Amino acid sequence: MNEYTVNGFSASGVAAGLKKNNRLDLGLITSDVPAAVAGVFTKNRVQAAPVRICRERIAAGSGIAFVANSGCANCCVGDDGLRNARVVTGQIAQALGISEENIFPASTGVIGMPLNTRKIVDAIPGLTAALRSDGFLDFARAIMTTDTVPKISSAAGAAAGRQYRIVGVAKGAGMIRPDMATMLCFVCTDAAVAAADLQPMLANAVDRSFNRITIDGDTSTNDTVLVMANGRSDAKIESDEDRSEFQSLLTGLLQKLARELVADGEGVTKVVDIQVRGAAGRDDAERVADAVAHSPLVKTALFGADANWGRIIAAAGRAGVELDPDRIDIFFDDVQMVRRGVGCGDDTEQRASQVLKKPSFTIVLDLHQGKHQASLLTCDFSIDYVKINADYRS
Amino acid sequence: MNEYTVNGFSASGVAAGLKKNNRLDLGLITSDVPAAVAGVFTKNRVQAAPVRICRERIAAGSGIAFVANSGCANCCVGDDGLRNARVVTGQIAQALGISEENIFPASTGVIGMPLNTRKIVDAIPGLTAALRSDGFLDFARAIMTTDTVPKISSAAGAAAGRQYRIVGVAKGAGMIRPDMATMLCFVCTDAAVAAADLQPMLANAVDRSFNRITIDGDTSTNDTVLVMANGRSDAKIESDEDRSEFQSLLTGLLQKLARELVADGEGVTKVVDIQVRGAAGRDDAERVADAVAHSPLVKTALFGADANWGRIIAAAGRAGVELDPDRIDIFFDDVQMVRRGVGCGDDTEQRASQVLKKPSFTIVLDLHQGKHQASLLTCDFSIDYVKINADYRS
Repeated sequence: MNEYTVNGFSASGVAAGLKKNNRLDLGLITSDVPAAVAGVFTKNRVQAAPVRICRERIAAGSGIAFVANSGCANCCVGDDGLRNARVVTGQIAQALGISEENIFPASTGVIGMPLNTRKIVDAIPGLTAALRSDGFLDFARAIMTTDTVPKISSAAGAAAGRQYRIVGVAKGAGMIRPDMATMLCFVCTDAAVAAADLQPMLANAVDRSFNRITIDGDTSTNDTVLVMANGRSDAKIESDEDRSEFQSLLTGLLQKLARELVADGEGVTKVVDIQVRGAAGRDDAERVADAVAHSPLVKTALFGADANWGRIIAAAGRAGVELDPDRIDIFFDDVQMVRRGVGCGDDTEQRASQVLKKPSFTIVLDLHQGKHQASLLTCDFSIDYVKINADYRS
Repeated sequence: MNEYTVNGFSASGVAAGLKKNNRLDLGLITSDVPAAVAGVFTKNRVQAAPVRICRERIAAGSGIAFVANSGCANCCVGDDGLRNARVVTGQIAQALGISEENIFPASTGVIGMPLNTRKIVDAIPGLTAALRSDGFLDFARAIMTTDTVPKISSAAGAAAGRQYRIVGVAKGAGMIRPDMATMLCFVCTDAAVAAADLQPMLANAVDRSFNRITIDGDTSTNDTVLVMANGRSDAKIESDEDRSEFQSLLTGLLQKLARELVADGEGVTKVVDIQVRGAAGRDDAERVADAVAHSPLVKTALFGADANWGRIIAAAGRAGVELDPDRIDIFFDDVQMVRRGVGCGDDTEQRASQVLKKPSFTIVLDLHQGKHQASLLTCDFSIDYVKINADYRS
């Protein structure tokens, strides 16, 4: 047994042979009663077959199972994509004795490679036999691609005098941008939440977690966040207060998983919170945060622990936002590096270098143009990132 | 003597001590008569002091000298920036016995560091004494930062029965994006071109050369392209035909230098022309080319010679453009990898891998949505890029 259990849910993960070296690559989560389901999906124009199936099925607002494979994205494979995804969910449905419409599929891995349904179908008896209340960790392992550790988290709350739990499982992306590789997240709660409430709550939580590590809502072909609420705890989320607590727990859970995705990004040695303050508008703040957080020159300097603030101010300057460079302040944690557009000197540079050696810190840009702010979680850009991605498929 | 000479121009490069190891770091180009001058400058909101001075002086449309230093960007240093740049051009003016307004300064190097004017002023007697008709190569060396080779090129044409020459010198940027580090380019011609003609011709040539290796016109704090035309050949560029030839030669010269910048980009092992065809509009074509050309996942795959077309199609899908993935064709040179959104199989993949091992090749995306196209020159993203940029200042 482990701490990652939630009433009425079972999970499992097995090795179907989609990945090499007999690693877990096929996972299943089931609820023992029909559950409310909500989902948030990629905005990429190119959408993997399982995403298209989830979009269809989510309209009903209910479901019983999530099935996910790693090792293959089931994307850009023509008509075979939908056909193969339906073979998988059809066979799982048969094994569980439920309707196929209750099953939500997800895939992650290489794009353009056909899904090997024979291997998956052969693995289904073992997959269903392995279902256990404490199987979420196996499921978390089964969806890993270049992740080095499984991502799993839980939270507990109370509503209407009843305790409820939430368990969330996620897998990370190439770097921190969900547009650059697949990110998947599956959340199960035994709270009773109406599907009509669950969807906006999930969207809100994603906006404040996974979308804080992304750019412009850009997403990969397979990105998927799904939640099932089966009500088995009898904790009914109905009052404003209970909704507020549930929302807060759900958002906190996803934020924790999002931070874990960044920290375990490919080759990442540092997690850096870019905070832009004093912008004339929210959009301006986001654009500056975005330009700084994605600049390869800034990210390589972070890797080298080089307090090269000139790259930060240059990235801000090309963000397409009206700003006065002579007003900009820059801080590395509490060390002020730049005051009104000018460096604060060698002493502060040495103190800033100490901050840069930490595994996690904050860079603040105060534009002194207005009252708006935005933040984005980013990471450094390392030699290992290049190594990992230069031969990802080999 | 070398081939890089042009009537009435002299150039030099010396070591003023701004860079380490006694490398050339200060360059001067002079015309022996006042010349028509045109310039194109960074669009970054943060503009280095020499850029601001050039913008002021270019209004007159004439000038006599270009002075450039490497080792310091003279940017984000408060009021000292303009003051120090004026000290440099003032001292050069005095040494040459001309008015300061005729001198166009440029700087490249680390942002936020004060310009050491004492070292520069001390070097000016040597700099002017070293002026020679074949000194352009020394000048080219003096403006290098992380460039590994000097970039210099020449062209020759004829107008009104007279031969004329053009010599161009450039220095490259961190990667290929001029927004990421300083790019400088200086062009001298002995053709007679009116300043009013020279400016639009230069803008046109830059659009088809340096802006083909950029994103959205984003530029660094110091980017500068300057041209002087002193008319010493008596080749008057006045007829439509002569204008057309001069434009063509100027554009070709800048394209050659632009390609050299990419090829000598930090850590670059491959130069790749991304061509998008069949887009519904020019803007769509540019956005798709941009997304593909800047995707770290695509660029690391190029470094690894991995024909991972899924990353290319995923980048196209997140470009924010309406497109139908089931219509996309992708070619690596003449090898078709993707037909109507689906991979063409292992055979073509092997052939594509051969293309990817070449130092230079083309990736074509045909969207089959319309008739518009765009192209962008990009490069791979290598381990050396990260190494170079992680400790640029050390």
